[in-house]
Amino acid sequence: MQTFQVGVLGATGAVGQKFVRLLEDHPWFKISVLGASERSAGKKYEEAAHWIEPTEMPADTAKMEVAECEPEAFSGVDFVFSGLDSSVAEGIEKSFAEAGIPVISNAKNYRMHDQVPLLVPEVNPDHADLITKQTFTDDGSGWIVTNPNCVSVPLSMSLKPLHDAFEIDEVIVTSMQSTSGAGYPGVPSLDIVANVVPYIGGEEPKVQTESTKVLGSLWDDTIAFNDFTIQATAVRVPTIEGHLLSVSVQLKNAPSSIDEAKQAYTDWDNPIASLDLPSSPENPIKLYEKNRHPQPRLHADREGGMQTAVGRLREGTVMDLGYVTMAHNTIRGAAGGAILNGELLAAKGLIH
Amino acid sequence: MQTFQVGVLGATGAVGQKFVRLLEDHPWFKISVLGASERSAGKKYEEAAHWIEPTEMPADTAKMEVAECEPEAFSGVDFVFSGLDSSVAEGIEKSFAEAGIPVISNAKNYRMHDQVPLLVPEVNPDHADLITKQTFTDDGSGWIVTNPNCVSVPLSMSLKPLHDAFEIDEVIVTSMQSTSGAGYPGVPSLDIVANVVPYIGGEEPKVQTESTKVLGSLWDDTIAFNDFTIQATAVRVPTIEGHLLSVSVQLKNAPSSIDEAKQAYTDWDNPIASLDLPSSPENPIKLYEKNRHPQPRLHADREGGMQTAVGRLREGTVMDLGYVTMAHNTIRGAAGGAILNGELLAAKGLIH
Amino acid sequence: MQTFQVGVLGATGAVGQKFVRLLEDHPWFKISVLGASERSAGKKYEEAAHWIEPTEMPADTAKMEVAECEPEAFSGVDFVFSGLDSSVAEGIEKSFAEAGIPVISNAKNYRMHDQVPLLVPEVNPDHADLITKQTFTDDGSGWIVTNPNCVSVPLSMSLKPLHDAFEIDEVIVTSMQSTSGAGYPGVPSLDIVANVVPYIGGEEPKVQTESTKVLGSLWDDTIAFNDFTIQATAVRVPTIEGHLLSVSVQLKNAPSSIDEAKQAYTDWDNPIASLDLPSSPENPIKLYEKNRHPQPRLHADREGGMQTAVGRLREGTVMDLGYVTMAHNTIRGAAGGAILNGELLAAKGLIH
Amino acid sequence: MQTFQVGVLGATGAVGQKFVRLLEDHPWFKISVLGASERSAGKKYEEAAHWIEPTEMPADTAKMEVAECEPEAFSGVDFVFSGLDSSVAEGIEKSFAEAGIPVISNAKNYRMHDQVPLLVPEVNPDHADLITKQTFTDDGSGWIVTNPNCVSVPLSMSLKPLHDAFEIDEVIVTSMQSTSGAGYPGVPSLDIVANVVPYIGGEEPKVQTESTKVLGSLWDDTIAFNDFTIQATAVRVPTIEGHLLSVSVQLKNAPSSIDEAKQAYTDWDNPIASLDLPSSPENPIKLYEKNRHPQPRLHADREGGMQTAVGRLREGTVMDLGYVTMAHNTIRGAAGGAILNGELLAAKGLIH
Repeated sequence: MQTFQVGVLGATGAVGQKFVRLLEDHPWFKISVLGASERSAGKKYEEAAHWIEPTEMPADTAKMEVAECEPEAFSGVDFVFSGLDSSVAEGIEKSFAEAGIPVISNAKNYRMHDQVPLLVPEVNPDHADLITKQTFTDDGSGWIVTNPNCVSVPLSMSLKPLHDAFEIDEVIVTSMQSTSGAGYPGVPSLDIVANVVPYIGGEEPKVQTESTKVLGSLWDDTIAFNDFTIQATAVRVPTIEGHLLSVSVQLKNAPSSIDEAKQAYTDWDNPIASLDLPSSPENPIKLYEKNRHPQPRLHADREGGMQTAVGRLREGTVMDLGYVTMAHNTIRGAAGGAILNGELLAAKGLIH
Repeated sequence: MQTFQVGVLGATGAVGQKFVRLLEDHPWFKISVLGASERSAGKKYEEAAHWIEPTEMPADTAKMEVAECEPEAFSGVDFVFSGLDSSVAEGIEKSFAEAGIPVISNAKNYRMHDQVPLLVPEVNPDHADLITKQTFTDDGSGWIVTNPNCVSVPLSMSLKPLHDAFEIDEVIVTSMQSTSGAGYPGVPSLDIVANVVPYIGGEEPKVQTESTKVLGSLWDDTIAFNDFTIQATAVRVPTIEGHLLSVSVQLKNAPSSIDEAKQAYTDWDNPIASLDLPSSPENPIKLYEKNRHPQPRLHADREGGMQTAVGRLREGTVMDLGYVTMAHNTIRGAAGGAILNGELLAAKGLIH
Repeated sequence: MQTFQVGVLGATGAVGQKFVRLLEDHPWFKISVLGASERSAGKKYEEAAHWIEPTEMPADTAKMEVAECEPEAFSGVDFVFSGLDSSVAEGIEKSFAEAGIPVISNAKNYRMHDQVPLLVPEVNPDHADLITKQTFTDDGSGWIVTNPNCVSVPLSMSLKPLHDAFEIDEVIVTSMQSTSGAGYPGVPSLDIVANVVPYIGGEEPKVQTESTKVLGSLWDDTIAFNDFTIQATAVRVPTIEGHLLSVSVQLKNAPSSIDEAKQAYTDWDNPIASLDLPSSPENPIKLYEKNRHPQPRLHADREGGMQTAVGRLREGTVMDLGYVTMAHNTIRGAAGGAILNGELLAAKGLIH
Repeated sequence: MQTFQVGVLGATGAVGQKFVRLLEDHPWFKISVLGASERSAGKKYEEAAHWIEPTEMPADTAKMEVAECEPEAFSGVDFVFSGLDSSVAEGIEKSFAEAGIPVISNAKNYRMHDQVPLLVPEVNPDHADLITKQTFTDDGSGWIVTNPNCVSVPLSMSLKPLHDAFEIDEVIVTSMQSTSGAGYPGVPSLDIVANVVPYIGGEEPKVQTESTKVLGSLWDDTIAFNDFTIQATAVRVPTIEGHLLSVSVQLKNAPSSIDEAKQAYTDWDNPIASLDLPSSPENPIKLYEKNRHPQPRLHADREGGMQTAVGRLREGTVMDLGYVTMAHNTIRGAAGGAILNGELLAAKGLIH
């Protein structure tokens, strides 16, 4: 694989830092430009970023000068990863796409756009082709790809084997979300130390819609959303990394036994396994058998934080099945997911 | 109201300590005997109990000698509160009832017994009369009353106004339970600091059944369980007091608007309000309007920990309604609930 | 005692909310004006304040209109409590004093001022008289009194009995400070969930000086600071209320035994006991004998949060003694301490 | 380097699990026997151990049968690592040494023994030679080496550069210790969620003595302890990994400036750097310059958890210097430290 020069938009923020950390020794992608707000522009990265990662800031990146998030400053890059806040992502990402610089974004702004793939490589890799329909530029050189929000990633991934086997009808989910999901400074400690806050602004509408696009079908030049329904309650809990979801699911063709449901997970084949993508985990969707698993502390970092863990799969009394699922929200559910999207697009020859 | 002499079974445990604390200045009930295991018997209470309450141990109680949990040692009492562990409650509570000493228990062992009321005074006060059908003694002097487990208390209370107005059909609940629910030493800190454990042994079966008894109907000499169905997921979160429940509910006669659903709560009348029970809160079931309410830190101690708080009442996409509810698990959901049961029985003249 | 009309400056902040809560049913002091920033002025208190107290907002206060912090808006009050942020306290407090409105402040700005008492009623009640030397107004009607910062309160209180008996020579202290000490939003949760931050900006200089003023002597028209030395390390820990201090102390006249040191605490007489101040605890400085005491969870709320708890008093290997001490940082160490100052001044007839 | 067959004593406990995890891919040491209590013996490791590590249990180890901790069961090993609880370590470790099986122990029992090195490879590598004086066997084939407790490791390491440059005179330390230090189940969550417990049984005497042995001198056949004095306060805080110490230190020859003190750290040479031990970090003692560093969350895992981080080095007001230091308590302060001891002994040719 060739080496790609990449830019990072929103590089000083929490997601941006995760991009910087995860790309430190990436075999294909090399950071050549870091973009942030006007306030940070012109400073060295180590001065501009309040570094909150538990590893040392990569020495090379530390000394790079931060640019403003304008296409002109990113002229040499093959594409950009965007960790921008949604309050500014819309305009900036569009300006990059229109300038012919592909954008692989973690922001929510274009997730529901008709021609923008909402991509989880193990679930809907074919959706990637949708980028050829985008019209940001005449020659198709600029496009936008997004990943789902940090809850919809494990939700859509954990539903996928069940959907393939039994078809999803209805889903009720309570997501217990970690503090890192709110960025930095994010959640005030007085709100969350030894506490649970039963509301996360703007979260539930995303959880209730995104998975139906991820599990939708590519028709011609758009995605036909899947027709199942999701009811979501999103709460904040005092964990650091790893969103844990309690899921109840009604199926169109219920399995005859819980073993058959488990079989759906063990039979599931990772459609991108043969691509050997650098960030692709060996077990993207792993079924745990112990009642107490998965947990944020024990499992969020498994396989580099790229695994979606499923556990407590059991028959339900109201709906067909109940289970819990968890994924590292800022890796699998954000920067790591976006990087895997980039790897998929590169492997498919869609990045030029 | 006369003064009753009461005993406390399991007085050194976490629930027992809560009984001791809550009864310190009780206007009707005065602790005259403390019972615990053989290991503690004969010691002063202050030596036998590893006190974990945030208030000072009541000075009088501190100096009392702990007795074994045998009826002979409790001869002077009018009744006992039981905070016994379920591993020993069955035999001990039976022996007290058979000895003519009424038992107001927090243990799970007799909750499902045909003639034992599973009592929440604001929800099913009429169930109290069932004790007259019990046959532990020939003269009816010994009987057992129970309260539901710490999740079923806020669940049944929060469902009650909806049930009266619209009839419950199906319920899906995820309970995020605080560490105090496991007693002391209880949950190892390595399991729960900055973590969520997606399983609590034996909890879900209780949550899936108890509320249907609480909301059931007294027919002659037994309770006809209500016919709605509950699907439960019980997880442990790093809070100290206050179980928070995320509830989705399907109704037989759905309200035409969310306002009509809210009206069910505001219209609800507390059937025991006129009894002026000492531990009875002014608002046993309170509907909060702010999205971020209720929370364990802010609301668990409201009204002496006796309030069931309801919040985020909203239309659902899969089931008719969604809401969250919370109650102080060791007060409203355990010792405080049992004391209120005692007060109801006393006010009804059922304790002789 | 007469009733005083009081104002609260900075009423919407964390300390201001504590004033509102603690004054709800105060027998002497009645809130008649609430002051906050321009942004809040004109709104009802319930709209202006993001209420973070675990009790309900007092109904009367909720409906009061918030004023700007200007003396004209407080014309009817007898004095004001100030919970202002130090960034604005200097100018505002001065303007009130100059307008003849006494200020009882929790802010740091005037603590080191020559004529301003740094008052802990149980330690240096005589310092209160210093207000007669202040010259904010010609007639002495306007003055400022302060309380020490939330660490210096338990430090000075716990040192007092030792100082009286053995004279303090040197003190080394590590303060493990709760999140509420930083106000709201204060400490980002990512900084503190399952973490310790070994630095609190600006805290150590205060801890190293304030206790020497509190334990100083009133000479004529100023305070002669005590001559002992304090070395402080201030760290943030994930607790909610209650700063815990680990203290090592060198004495000028060391006790001959640890029992003699303990005797200093039990012999200590509360100089204001006879005044029966409403917020004065029965045991302002309490020595705990159990090794595991005091703890924030168990002891911060003792005696309405007004007690300074001392524990683990023991012989040292480097310095004469070691001990730990703890007080509720936003009650005893802030709003509650200021209210007690107000009560002392009222009882002494210093508020007109 | 040859490959050594190693046994692990206490393999199912918290420290034993860390040995298993850290040795999974060790280039020199291969686990061939796992020993645990009678209760576990005969079971597969995956059945015997309640695995609490955040990584997957090594597949090979999972299937190994656990043996009892008797020398006969370990006949093929070159030496054993001991993660035994101190309640049983004394007898078992002696029996292994007497059977000619070297013991590299994390237990406290032999730390103060005259001929047993208390070894921190970067601080006192020469003490290793003391094993040749041990008389457990006639031919010297059996011996015991220990590492200090989890607080004394960062304390002795952080003191070393200062001692070399200025000679330590007196030390006052408050150690804020994480929950993992108490093993599993260890600290009850009710004791520590949002709390600090100001006492850890038996900890302070270890902290007050061990560093004076580590920094002592090897004379002939024993260690002359260093003559400085340590006063310790050990408290438990709600962190997971990483003990943070607040240290004040008096020196015999004080530096003339804080820069000279910092210089002592930057000038310090790692005496074992040239040995290229597999677990040896590049910066065993690293001085951080940012006020807010080091923190458990950000720095405990640096360099595989083998780094001792030092920060906030500053002039003191009572003693010459103040600083904070932190190390991963179950890696650097326990299993990882013991493994590094094994590597040092192997590199020195002391394991046959």
